[in-house]
Amino acid sequence: MESGNQSMEKKRKDLLMEIFSAGLRAVDPEAAVRSQVSRQGNCLTVGGRAYDLDYFRRVILIGAGKATALMAKALEELLEDYLIEGLILVKPGYAVPLRKTRVIEAGHPIPDQSGLEGTVEIIRRLSAASEKDLVVCAFSGGASALLPAPVPPLNLSQKQLTTQLLLECGAEIGEINSIRKHLSRSKGGGLARAAYPATLISLILSDVVGDRLDVIASGPTVPDDSRFADCIAMVERYGLASRLPGPVWQYLKDGAAGLFPETPKAGDHIFAKVQNIVVGNNRMALLAARDQAEALGFRTLLLTSGLEGEAHQVGRMLVALGKEVGFSGHPVAPPACLLAGGETTVTLRGQGKGSRNQELALAAAIALEGLSRISLLSAGTDGTDGPTDAAGAFVDGATCQRARARGLDPGDFLSRNDSYHFFESLGDLLITGPTRTNVMDIMCLLIE
Amino acid sequence: MESGNQSMEKKRKDLLMEIFSAGLRAVDPEAAVRSQVSRQGNCLTVGGRAYDLDYFRRVILIGAGKATALMAKALEELLEDYLIEGLILVKPGYAVPLRKTRVIEAGHPIPDQSGLEGTVEIIRRLSAASEKDLVVCAFSGGASALLPAPVPPLNLSQKQLTTQLLLECGAEIGEINSIRKHLSRSKGGGLARAAYPATLISLILSDVVGDRLDVIASGPTVPDDSRFADCIAMVERYGLASRLPGPVWQYLKDGAAGLFPETPKAGDHIFAKVQNIVVGNNRMALLAARDQAEALGFRTLLLTSGLEGEAHQVGRMLVALGKEVGFSGHPVAPPACLLAGGETTVTLRGQGKGSRNQELALAAAIALEGLSRISLLSAGTDGTDGPTDAAGAFVDGATCQRARARGLDPGDFLSRNDSYHFFESLGDLLITGPTRTNVMDIMCLLIE
Repeated sequence: MESGNQSMEKKRKDLLMEIFSAGLRAVDPEAAVRSQVSRQGNCLTVGGRAYDLDYFRRVILIGAGKATALMAKALEELLEDYLIEGLILVKPGYAVPLRKTRVIEAGHPIPDQSGLEGTVEIIRRLSAASEKDLVVCAFSGGASALLPAPVPPLNLSQKQLTTQLLLECGAEIGEINSIRKHLSRSKGGGLARAAYPATLISLILSDVVGDRLDVIASGPTVPDDSRFADCIAMVERYGLASRLPGPVWQYLKDGAAGLFPETPKAGDHIFAKVQNIVVGNNRMALLAARDQAEALGFRTLLLTSGLEGEAHQVGRMLVALGKEVGFSGHPVAPPACLLAGGETTVTLRGQGKGSRNQELALAAAIALEGLSRISLLSAGTDGTDGPTDAAGAFVDGATCQRARARGLDPGDFLSRNDSYHFFESLGDLLITGPTRTNVMDIMCLLIE
Repeated sequence: MESGNQSMEKKRKDLLMEIFSAGLRAVDPEAAVRSQVSRQGNCLTVGGRAYDLDYFRRVILIGAGKATALMAKALEELLEDYLIEGLILVKPGYAVPLRKTRVIEAGHPIPDQSGLEGTVEIIRRLSAASEKDLVVCAFSGGASALLPAPVPPLNLSQKQLTTQLLLECGAEIGEINSIRKHLSRSKGGGLARAAYPATLISLILSDVVGDRLDVIASGPTVPDDSRFADCIAMVERYGLASRLPGPVWQYLKDGAAGLFPETPKAGDHIFAKVQNIVVGNNRMALLAARDQAEALGFRTLLLTSGLEGEAHQVGRMLVALGKEVGFSGHPVAPPACLLAGGETTVTLRGQGKGSRNQELALAAAIALEGLSRISLLSAGTDGTDGPTDAAGAFVDGATCQRARARGLDPGDFLSRNDSYHFFESLGDLLITGPTRTNVMDIMCLLIE
């Protein structure tokens, strides 16, 4: 009986892993680039728009983000000899060997000197590009930290202190990003401005809910709709005028007075030469996972690619959906696979180790206790769930019972945010290593 | 344009209200009773089981709960002259005129002397019932408070203090209920024991997630699986032995020593003469709401009847599902209606007025801002959302904009738990008055 349960458990893990892996394959950065970019002879087609490569004097590649090395690899293969040179910034450990593209490992999530120097070099190369040059960009999650470029005369620590102050006074992320874009030479369309009058193609692997182009990687090639005056109003609303670093406040006031140009806006002529295109996102991963689940014999329901909110609450809600399937066959009858994606958050209450996917899974395990036919996987597509070496975890109705048999109290681990050690003890961590892609998280629920 | 928006908004409210009302009609207590109980001549059929009314010497009716008056009305009409007498306990304002049944309005949610006296009278009548008597019971949400009957020598305030201490030390609701059942003559099968050897039919309108019969109304006619020894262990685990009222602790210890009988267990002979049946629940309301939505031209998805969790988080998650429908047509293409039910909770952070449905709707309004084709209703089927005179609220993508135009900051109202005043100002409260039914809450999301 025990071995029967073990093999059932093993089979569920295998099924969940097959479905998750199919999702990952669909957003492999190389596959994602090739899904939107193709070449025949001198004709490069990007999302249905054609470029005559022979028209251009030089084709260069730049990029930043966790998934960018593999995106660059695909672009090198696609562009072949048309590509003259490239420069990308990646998180340490995320580099791969490239033929023509220089890869700089820069600080993430805290920007460092390598990132600063690399970004300056990117801006230098873009600024040198002529009207007859083509710039191909590759951006993915993590690029904001990898592309630091404070406007002169500001330095990195002044920018970081500003962000810190805004966070502490409760400013919303959209407000903070508006100010960061105004203090940066790269963000908020900054790289598009630097590249003008060259033609620019920006390939984007989305790691944000809703794929907002002005949010992914802080939108280096995308119009920004905020103004210096908005930044001033925001600083004053939060009573920060006297607390901001002096040069930052002075810069914003001078900008509002017209001494510096606003970030480029939608309709600005520079964007006539820019194509931004999302080559991969959470929904693409979910669709591929769905196809795999159907091939395995499950009725499927792709719930949403836009999950947000507190991880343990989302875990409970997913279980509520799974229980309904099991008890009443709504909205689909078993065997069923419910799929969702997005990125939840964890409000820390304890000192434990873990992150959003593992915490979601632990809360789900508690809500599932004793149900024999429901199992769940929650995992980050980048292979790293917060500060852990796991992508996420597996749970089913027997998880809590198995934990108690080892003297582990699931509720206690959850209240201490210690999901990693809980699943480590049970051998139920999902470990993939770095996947070199990043389209947020995937949750898969099987109801047999 | 403004009037166009207003009429659009009016039309959405009408659609949402039509769908919600169809759900309410399906769980109208009279309709619910008649869906499971019918009579032809001397034959009473209850959920497929037949009773020969001529066999019984006396048929009596007892009950407690918010919806019980209308359940009793249907039972009086069904039983006609077979019914000898009845006694039910309802929340003040929930009585209706009955022919043979005495209706006592008793304290809710805080038990009072009327409830105590009424419960004693119910137990007296049940104890007087013989083997050839039939007891028909009607229970619905609220019955726990309406049926107070401390075991002698305990009094009501000692029981209440015990519950309070358990809540404060973080005991789980299941643990608290185990102790309450052991301190009560009515809960945890107490009324079934009192009625034995009479035949007993218990008609139950469920107001709990998963329809657990031992939880609804504290299971007065249902086996209880906890023991005095469990209660002792729990009290000691939370370090409450010296803090409980002395007589309570003494009673539990004496019970564990075998001086008092355990609550009746599954398999106990008394339950051979008991039929418990759920006549209405949240899922029935959702199914009827779904049929109405389909009749109105929407593709529908009944998500779950088991929603739990923090109201504002659930609101955000429902919006995430609605956005996916709008953006990608998953899991159904617009025009679509997503339906969910259950009961969320609110962790109070502010001093405002509101409750779970209004708070859920306000969080949804914030997440929906600017989207033109999504609207949501969240409302309690009993017509009262917490301590307010509203059942819930309506929201759509224009709600926040309309609020700001009146100088109201949605995020501020949410952080103060002041959703009632927010929606009152906008005229977007859903007000039904007491519906005299109670199957938790319904959320309806329309995506056009």
